[in-house]
Amino acid sequence: MTHTEKSPDTAVTSGTSDIAAGLTRRGSDRPAKLRDRADRAVRTAVAAELQDVLDGRWPDVKNRTRALIEEKDLRPDDTLGIDEARERTLAQVHDMLSTGAPRGAFHEDHGGTGDIGATLTSIEVVGGADLSLMVKAGVQWGLWGGAVENLGTARHIPLIKDIMELRTLGSFAMTERGHGSDVQSLETTAVYDRQTREFVINTPTASAEKWYIGNAAKHARMAAVFCQLYTPDEDGDLGESHGVHCIVVEVRDEDGTAKPGVGIGDHLHKGGLKGVDNGTFTFDHVRVPRENLLNRFADVSEEGEYSSPIESDGARFFTMLGALIRGRITVGAASGAAARSALAIATGYANLRRQFAPDDDLPENRLIEHRKHRLRLIPLIARSYGLQLASNQLISRLHDLESAGIDRTDMTKEQRWDQRELEAHAAALKAANTAHATRVIQECREACGGAGYMTENLLTTFKADSDVFTTFEGDNVVMMQLAAKELLTGFSREVGDLKPLELVRFGLDNFGTLLKRRTAADTLIQNLVDSFTDREETSLFDAAYQVELLTERENRLLMSLIRRIRPAQKMEIKDAAALVDKAQDHLLECAWAHVDRIILEAMLEAEAGLPDGQAKEIMEQVRDVFVLDIIHGNSGWYQEQNLLTGTRTKAARAALNDLVDSLGPWSQTLVDAFAVPGNIADVPLMTDYDDMVPRAQTHPAAGMH
Amino acid sequence: MTHTEKSPDTAVTSGTSDIAAGLTRRGSDRPAKLRDRADRAVRTAVAAELQDVLDGRWPDVKNRTRALIEEKDLRPDDTLGIDEARERTLAQVHDMLSTGAPRGAFHEDHGGTGDIGATLTSIEVVGGADLSLMVKAGVQWGLWGGAVENLGTARHIPLIKDIMELRTLGSFAMTERGHGSDVQSLETTAVYDRQTREFVINTPTASAEKWYIGNAAKHARMAAVFCQLYTPDEDGDLGESHGVHCIVVEVRDEDGTAKPGVGIGDHLHKGGLKGVDNGTFTFDHVRVPRENLLNRFADVSEEGEYSSPIESDGARFFTMLGALIRGRITVGAASGAAARSALAIATGYANLRRQFAPDDDLPENRLIEHRKHRLRLIPLIARSYGLQLASNQLISRLHDLESAGIDRTDMTKEQRWDQRELEAHAAALKAANTAHATRVIQECREACGGAGYMTENLLTTFKADSDVFTTFEGDNVVMMQLAAKELLTGFSREVGDLKPLELVRFGLDNFGTLLKRRTAADTLIQNLVDSFTDREETSLFDAAYQVELLTERENRLLMSLIRRIRPAQKMEIKDAAALVDKAQDHLLECAWAHVDRIILEAMLEAEAGLPDGQAKEIMEQVRDVFVLDIIHGNSGWYQEQNLLTGTRTKAARAALNDLVDSLGPWSQTLVDAFAVPGNIADVPLMTDYDDMVPRAQTHPAAGMH
Repeated sequence: MTHTEKSPDTAVTSGTSDIAAGLTRRGSDRPAKLRDRADRAVRTAVAAELQDVLDGRWPDVKNRTRALIEEKDLRPDDTLGIDEARERTLAQVHDMLSTGAPRGAFHEDHGGTGDIGATLTSIEVVGGADLSLMVKAGVQWGLWGGAVENLGTARHIPLIKDIMELRTLGSFAMTERGHGSDVQSLETTAVYDRQTREFVINTPTASAEKWYIGNAAKHARMAAVFCQLYTPDEDGDLGESHGVHCIVVEVRDEDGTAKPGVGIGDHLHKGGLKGVDNGTFTFDHVRVPRENLLNRFADVSEEGEYSSPIESDGARFFTMLGALIRGRITVGAASGAAARSALAIATGYANLRRQFAPDDDLPENRLIEHRKHRLRLIPLIARSYGLQLASNQLISRLHDLESAGIDRTDMTKEQRWDQRELEAHAAALKAANTAHATRVIQECREACGGAGYMTENLLTTFKADSDVFTTFEGDNVVMMQLAAKELLTGFSREVGDLKPLELVRFGLDNFGTLLKRRTAADTLIQNLVDSFTDREETSLFDAAYQVELLTERENRLLMSLIRRIRPAQKMEIKDAAALVDKAQDHLLECAWAHVDRIILEAMLEAEAGLPDGQAKEIMEQVRDVFVLDIIHGNSGWYQEQNLLTGTRTKAARAALNDLVDSLGPWSQTLVDAFAVPGNIADVPLMTDYDDMVPRAQTHPAAGMH
Repeated sequence: MTHTEKSPDTAVTSGTSDIAAGLTRRGSDRPAKLRDRADRAVRTAVAAELQDVLDGRWPDVKNRTRALIEEKDLRPDDTLGIDEARERTLAQVHDMLSTGAPRGAFHEDHGGTGDIGATLTSIEVVGGADLSLMVKAGVQWGLWGGAVENLGTARHIPLIKDIMELRTLGSFAMTERGHGSDVQSLETTAVYDRQTREFVINTPTASAEKWYIGNAAKHARMAAVFCQLYTPDEDGDLGESHGVHCIVVEVRDEDGTAKPGVGIGDHLHKGGLKGVDNGTFTFDHVRVPRENLLNRFADVSEEGEYSSPIESDGARFFTMLGALIRGRITVGAASGAAARSALAIATGYANLRRQFAPDDDLPENRLIEHRKHRLRLIPLIARSYGLQLASNQLISRLHDLESAGIDRTDMTKEQRWDQRELEAHAAALKAANTAHATRVIQECREACGGAGYMTENLLTTFKADSDVFTTFEGDNVVMMQLAAKELLTGFSREVGDLKPLELVRFGLDNFGTLLKRRTAADTLIQNLVDSFTDREETSLFDAAYQVELLTERENRLLMSLIRRIRPAQKMEIKDAAALVDKAQDHLLECAWAHVDRIILEAMLEAEAGLPDGQAKEIMEQVRDVFVLDIIHGNSGWYQEQNLLTGTRTKAARAALNDLVDSLGPWSQTLVDAFAVPGNIADVPLMTDYDDMVPRAQTHPAAGMH
C-alpha cells in the first residue's frame, strides 16, 4: 500500500523503551513510550514479524488465498442485481476450488487431503474479502459437505467426491421457521416405510418449514435434511421419535426443476450476503431411499430396525453436532478477518486524512493524531490481535483432534472432555469474534465519516454482510450460555461433590488453577502465576498481574454464579428454569470473562515466541491495551470486589491513554501486519487528493475578464 | 396490531405498587413490582396516555403524517434498483407536500405557514417509516429551502415559493471532499466581476469538489453553494476572502442537462438511503448574477463593495450556520423515530416468538420472558422515551425562538446566549439520538435473530439507512465537542474571572445550580434538588437523588476538565491544541454526562404532568431504568469519586434487573405508545405461524402405504 510512505519516516529514533525488560514488572502504572519514528525498512520488518505471529500455522495457505483474492479481484460488487450477484459468487466458489484448499475438508480416503486446518484457514482469509463467497463456500464444503463427510459412511463416498469437486451443490437444511437455536425440537419428520424401504420426509406444520437455508433458492440439487426419525412397527404404529437425524434429499432435477413434493421458496433480499441464495424447503411426503440416511451414528435396517452405538437420543444428537463444529469455527474466524480488513481501511484512512488545523498557520492534523481517534481504533486493533491468536489455537486444536482420527461412537472419557471443551471454546470464540466484528466494522465506518458510507469503500458491505454472523451457526447469546454451562460442568467435574460452603473454603486460587488447564500456554501461564506475589507493588503492565486480574474475574463470577443457581438442583424444573433465567446475565458475563482470559493467554504465548526487539515491544503494548481496556470497561466490578482501588482504575484509564499515544505512530504497521490483500485495503478513500491535479485552475481570479 | 391480543390478558391484578407514592423516596433500593396482568382495555388506555406524553406539542401533525404513511404505504422497498428507488422517493416527497406540513418551514410572507414545529415534527415521523424519504424531504425543504429562506432576502421570495411547492428542486452544496466537519476551511471560490456584475464560481482543487451532495446526482436544478467570497479591487487585486458565503447556482437546464462549466458526479451506491441521489459538483468558472448571493448577512454592491452588519468573518459564518440549525434537529429527531420503529418491531416479536422450553412438558418461553432479552430491549426503550421528550423540548424551543422573529444581525446578549445554548443542545441531541439509533437498530436486528436479517422485516434497511446519521449534519464526535465547548463557555460566563483554586472553593453545589438554568423544568428540578438532603438514607429511586447523581457527574467532569485545560490559555497555539487534544476523551465524556442530565430533566417534567395511576407508575419505572442504566454503566467512575459505594452500585445493577422484570409484561404497551404506523410495525415476522394452516398434513404417518 502506497500510503505507508506518508508516515513520518525519518531515520532518527527518539528514546528507547524499557518495555522489553521482562514480563514481570514492578512499579509504575505509566507505560514506556515506543519510539515514534522509524524508517520504512524498520516498519516493514516489524510488520512482517508481527504478520508471522498472526498468520499462525498455515501461512502458505493464507498467502495463496490472498494471492487468489488479488488475482481474481474477489470482493463484493454491490452494483449487481441479486441474480447476477448469486451467479458471480458461484463462479468464485469454483475459483476457490482451483487453490485446492477446500479439499482439506475431506478425508484422504474420500479423495481429499485431510488437511482441515488448511481449509478453515483458507475460508477465514476469504472472509476478509467477500463474506458472500465465504458463506457460499462454507455452505457447500463446510455444512453440506461436512454433514455427508462426518455423518455418512462408506456408501456416501461417491457423493462426497461430487460435493468436493462442486459437481453436486447442496444445502444444509437444519434450521426451521420455528426452531433456530433449539434444534432438538425440529419438527420435520422422516418415517421409514418397510414396504418400499424408503424414508418419507414430511413438513407437518408451518413452523417446520426449513428456513434461511443457503443454496436453497437457486443452486442446491440436494440437501442434508435434519428431521425426527420414526421407524413404525409392523402394525404401522409410529412409536417415539429416535431424535434428530440427517437424511440426504434430492431437491432439484439436473435441469433445476424442484422434485415432486419439494416446495422451494426464495428469501430474496437480506440485510447483506447478496451473493448467497437463501431459501426455504417444504416436503410433502417426499420419498428417498433408505441409504440416504447419513448412518455413521445410527442406522435403520431394511426391515426397519433402528440401531445406534450411542444409546441416548440426546447424546447421539450432540455427537452429530460435535462432528459439525467446523462451521462454527469458520464463522468466527471469517468475522475476525472481516474486522481486520475494516481496521486496515479505517487505520489507513486515519493515517492519511487531515481535518482541522489548530490554527490557520498550522497544517491540519491527521485523524490518527487526535486522541479520541486513537482510542476508537487501537483498542479494537489490540482485541483483533488477541482474537486472531486465539482463533489460530482453536483451528490448530481442531486439526490435531480430527487428524488423530478418533472414533466418535466410542470416545474415551478424556476424549469426550476434550471434545466438549473444544466445542465450548468454539462457541465462545464464535460469539467473541462475531460480536467484535459487528462493533469494529461499525466503528470503522463511522471513523471514516462520509467516505465510510460509500459502497466503493467496502465498509458498509462488510457491515451488511457480517451482520448475521452474530446469529447464524448459533446465536451469540445461546453460544455464550453454552460456553458458561461448559464452565460449570468442567467445574463440577474437577471439584466433584463439594458442598457450597466447602467450595468457598476450597479457595479461589486453587479453583482458578483447576480451570486453567487446556490452554496451549499452560506452562508459561503457570510460571507467570507462580511468579506473582504482591498486588500492591505490581504494575498494571505486569503480565502475571494481568493474568491474575482476568482469572480472578472469571473465577469469582463463576463462584457467585454457582452459589446463585445451586438451589435449582432441588427444585421443580419450572422453578429451576426460572431461577437460572434470573441469573442469565450473570451466566453470560461469566462466559465473556472466560473468553477474555483465553485471549490473553493466547497473546502471552505468541509474545513469548518473539525475540527481543521492536516487534516484541509492540506486541507487549498491544497486550497491555487489550487488558487495560477490559479493566477499564469493568472498573466498577473491580472496585466492588476490592480487587482494585479507585486510584488504580483511574491509573488504568490513564495508562490506556498513554498506550494509544505510544502505539499511534505504529498504527499503520499494526494493520499492515494483517496483510489484507491490496484490492481490499486500497479502496478509493485511500486516494490522496492533495497530490491530485485539480480539475479546474487553482487561482481564484484565473479566468476573469 | 393484532399481536397485542396475545398478551396474558386476564382481568386479575396482582399486588399494587407503591411507586407512585411520591418523587422523593427513602429506603430500599428494590423497586416495587408493577402488576403484571391487566386486561386489554387497561393496556390500551395506558398506551394512549403514554402516547399523549410522547407526542408532545404537535400530536395532530404526528397523526396526520402517520395516516399518510399508512395510506401511501410509505416505506423502503429494497427490491428496487437504484434508479427506480430514486424516482419513487421523489414521488413520495410530493405525497408529503399534500399534507401541507412542509409549508411550515417557510414564513407566511413567503407563502408558508410559519409553523416550523409542525414541519420538523412531520419530517421526524417520516423518519420512522422511510429514511430515504426523510432525507430527500430534508434536503429539499430543510437544507436547500432553509438556506434560501434563512440566508436570502426579499429578492429570493419567488425562488422560495418554487422550492416550497417542489417546482425547483435543489441541493445544499456545503461539504467538500477535503472539508466535512471543518466547513470554515471550504475552498470553493466566488469572485465578483465588476464588469459583468456576476460572481464567478470555481473549484480550485480536487479537495474543493462538492461531495456527498443530496439531490445532486439526478434531481437538483439549482444549488446553494457555499464558497469563499472575494471582491477584487479596481486593479483586480483579489484581496482576502470575506469568509464562507452562500450563492445560488443553476446546475441543470430544465431538461436536466448540466449547465456549462458545471461538473456533476454520481456517488451511486451507498451503505443505504438508496432513494437519495447523492452526487458531486465541480464548477469551472461558472458565472451567476450578483443577485444570487443570499444576502441577509452580507452583500456585495453592483460596484463590488462588500458590506455586512456583522463585522467578524467568523461571527458572520456562525450566524449563518445558526440559522440552519433545523437540519441538525431533524436528523436527530428522525433517528429517534427510526429507533422507536425498530423497538416496536423487536419488542412485538419478543412478545410473540417462543424459543426453548425448560422441559418437554412445558411450553416454550416467549423471548421477552428471558431476563437477558428484557435487559437488551427495555433500557433502550427507556432511553428512547427520554430522547423523545428531550427532542420535543428542543423542537418546541426552536419553534418559539423562530416564531419570535429575532433579528440575527442584531441580537441582544441574552438572545445570543439563548441561540448558542440552543445550538449546543441541538448538537448534543443530534449526537445522542443518532448514536442511540445506531445501537438500538443493531440490537433489535440481533434480538430478532434470522428474521431480523430479512429485508422484508425492515430492520436491516433502518440500519443501513440510519447509519450515516452519526456522520452527516455534523459528525457526532465534532457535535459532542461543540456541546462541551459551549458548557465551558457557559461556565466562564457565569463564573467569570475566578481563578482555578477559587473555582474549587466556589463549591460544586452552587456551580451545579448555575449550569442548570435553561431547561424547561427549572422550577420542578430546583424544588427536587432543594428537597434533597441525605445520600446515605436515600433510595436510588428517589428522583432528587437521581438528579443529584447525574448532575454531580456532569459538574465534576467539567470541573476536572477545566483544571486540565486551563494551562492552555498561556501556551502557544500548537502546544495548547496538543494539551486540549489530550483531554479530548474527557471533553466528550463531559458532553455525554450533560446530555444524560438534560434527558432526565425532560423525563421528570413529563412525569410531573401525568395524573396518578398506572401510566405514571410505568413512566417512573421507565425513568428509573434510564438512570440506573447510566449509573451501572458508569459504576467505576461513581466509586472512584466516592459518590457511591460498591454496595450501592451492586444494588443499582440488581435494581435494574428487578425493573426490567417489572416492566417486561408492559413492554408491548411501552412500544404501542410509540404509535408506529401499522405498515411499519406489522412486518412479516409478526406472523403467528402457530395458528397457520400447515401446508402438509400433520400426522407424520399420513400418506404412508
